[in-house]
Formats: sequence, C-alpha cells, structure tokens
Amino acid sequence: MEKPALPEHEILDLLKRRWSPRAFSDKPVPEPILSRMFEAARWAASSYNEQPWTYILGVKAEDTAEFDRIASTLYPPNAWAKSAPVIALSVAKLKFSHDGSPNRVAIHDVGAASASLTLQALAEDVFVHQMGGFDPKKAKELFGIPDDYEAVAALAIGYPGDPEELPEALKAREEAPRTRKKIEEFVFRGKWGGGRF
Amino acid sequence: MEKPALPEHEILDLLKRRWSPRAFSDKPVPEPILSRMFEAARWAASSYNEQPWTYILGVKAEDTAEFDRIASTLYPPNAWAKSAPVIALSVAKLKFSHDGSPNRVAIHDVGAASASLTLQALAEDVFVHQMGGFDPKKAKELFGIPDDYEAVAALAIGYPGDPEELPEALKAREEAPRTRKKIEEFVFRGKWGGGRF
Repeated sequence: MEKPALPEHEILDLLKRRWSPRAFSDKPVPEPILSRMFEAARWAASSYNEQPWTYILGVKAEDTAEFDRIASTLYPPNAWAKSAPVIALSVAKLKFSHDGSPNRVAIHDVGAASASLTLQALAEDVFVHQMGGFDPKKAKELFGIPDDYEAVAALAIGYPGDPEELPEALKAREEAPRTRKKIEEFVFRGKWGGGRF
Repeated sequence: MEKPALPEHEILDLLKRRWSPRAFSDKPVPEPILSRMFEAARWAASSYNEQPWTYILGVKAEDTAEFDRIASTLYPPNAWAKSAPVIALSVAKLKFSHDGSPNRVAIHDVGAASASLTLQALAEDVFVHQMGGFDPKKAKELFGIPDDYEAVAALAIGYPGDPEELPEALKAREEAPRTRKKIEEFVFRGKWGGGRF
C-alpha cells in the first residue's frame, strides 16, 4: 500500500511517497539496501560535523533474540512494529566530542540523518516508520548505551504489508487520509504568527 | 561549486550532492522554490503528527530589515551567512498540542523537516547550510517566540557562490575534503560498540 502526500506545491516524488505504514511484509530487507541506508545517514549534515547519530540494529531473519530485545523497548501501542523484518534505535550523543560541551542540536541532527536514511530506503521501496513511543531508559540499560547518549527513536523498517492484517483500529488509521497544517501556519515573516508566506 | 559526498555504498544523487557551502551567490531564490521547500518540510514525519516545526523567514531582496534582524542572531563565525539571499530560523514546539506533555522528539522532528526542505531545495540547485551557531535567546526576544518553543537552527539558503570571495580561512574550509565516520563506527548490533554491521 502507498499513501502519497497531497501537496499544494509540487515536491519530489520521493518526498511525496514517504509515509509511515504500520503494515509490513515479512520479506527481509537485503543487506546491501541496509548498507545504503546507513551510508545515506552517514552523509547527513551536523553541527561541527559531529555526526552525533548511532543506530542499534536488529534484523529478525539473522538474529531473532537481538531483534526481540530492541522490540521489547517499544510501548504497547507500537507492538505492530514487531511484524517488520528490521528494527533499529537511533541514539544521539548529547555532548560535542571536540570539547565536551552540550550539543544543543544533537537530537536535531539525528533527525536529519534518519530522514536521509528513510529517503534512501524509499528509493528502494523500503519504508521506515519512526516511533517516539518506546522506553529510552530501558534501551539504555539493555544495550549499555553510555552516559551522555540518549536513545531518540525506534525505527521499523521493511516492505509495505497488507493493511487487512492489522487490528481493526490500526487498519482504520492506516487508511485514514493524511493531514498537515497549511504552510502559512508554520512559516512566519517578521515576527511570530505575523505576515503570510 | 559542488562538493559531492564520496560514499562507500552508492546512494541517491541528491543525498550525495547535499553539502553546506559558505559561499553563496546573491541571485535571489524564486518564491515558488521557497514554497516547494516549505511544502517538503510540511510532509515530513513527526511524532503524533505534531508537526512541531515553525520557520521564521527573511528574504533579503524583499525586506532587508527583516533579513538583517534574523542575521543579527548569528554568532560572529557565521557572519558569512549574511551573503546568502535568504535566511531562516527553524523553531521547535517543545510540548505536544494534544495534551501539553513534553515532546521528547520535537527537535528531532524539526531536523527531519529541515532535511526534507534541504533536499527539495537541492533538486532545484538551491543549497541550504544549517547552523547551530546563533543566539536562540536573542531570537526568542526579537521575534516574540512563545514559551514552550525553542529556536533550533539558522538556515542560509541560496545558489552556490564563488569560494574565492570568502575570507582565506573559510576558503580553505570550503575546499577541504569531506569526511565522515565509517558505518561500523555508528551502527551497532546486539550491544553498544559491539558487532560489526
């Protein structure tokens, strides 16, 4: 299933196609595609070229225990993500390596890296659904994530599946139309809330 | 000037071409391109579809005072950004609209929206250089950014310029090779630092 954006201004096909499915096929994601996804993350922009992103990766077909350990950090409403063939956690390093000072934009730059990863995946028909709904403290304990690092998001990765296989409530959400604020609600000129784009 | 990534695994051309120049041409960015850039941001993924991003936009050719006000928040090492024809600030809403609870991933999702914006721009040969080096408190005062919101990054936007016009130190940085960690330094299996990708 695809669920393209309905933009008011024409944008790249890849950006239109990106969405966050809950129904995943159990078809494995070939390792070369995963490599290209992380390569895409690798070249993202970051403050001071800090590259504050780390990913903890679980591939169901290769190591179910590893996959399950990551999946065990998900909050119950995200249990659907266990049907994806690949799951990952993104982690941010909260301090700069060059001087140990706080990196105010570490989590921002992880967001940019994961966005690149997601678009690279999509170019190969692999979808990524990111979730804030997992337990970062549990992740920290389970994987020995050091102090000064924070688990940021969980990523379900795979080929789209059949929405019919989802529980009824999720199926309805899967099929609901996509909605967004209008541009003039989030682009301001001169002052907050002021001026139209 | 272009300065493509040198990936070990092949990635999308657009992701390879993305980089953060300091030399900008003074050629204005047509408004339809700016519209498509914000449209791209609009369709980014966000936790609870909160869309926590706001942009404060200054277009030099339309309103120099507005542009200068944004530029006045930049820290001195980013003074080069004043040569770009367009400048913006990205702002994150730190609490969820549906229940007022803290949105742990607000800044992350702003990073994703700005990454989409950057790639849409690049598809039209417009480059975006994001900077953490500006004064978020000053931005808050100058633009009346409400509590619960935080200015995250400054964005210089425009067509690439001539590196020869940069001060010597910046010219050297502009021409230095691009570097990144290796994938195995930031993708872990099983536990922190453990296993190779």
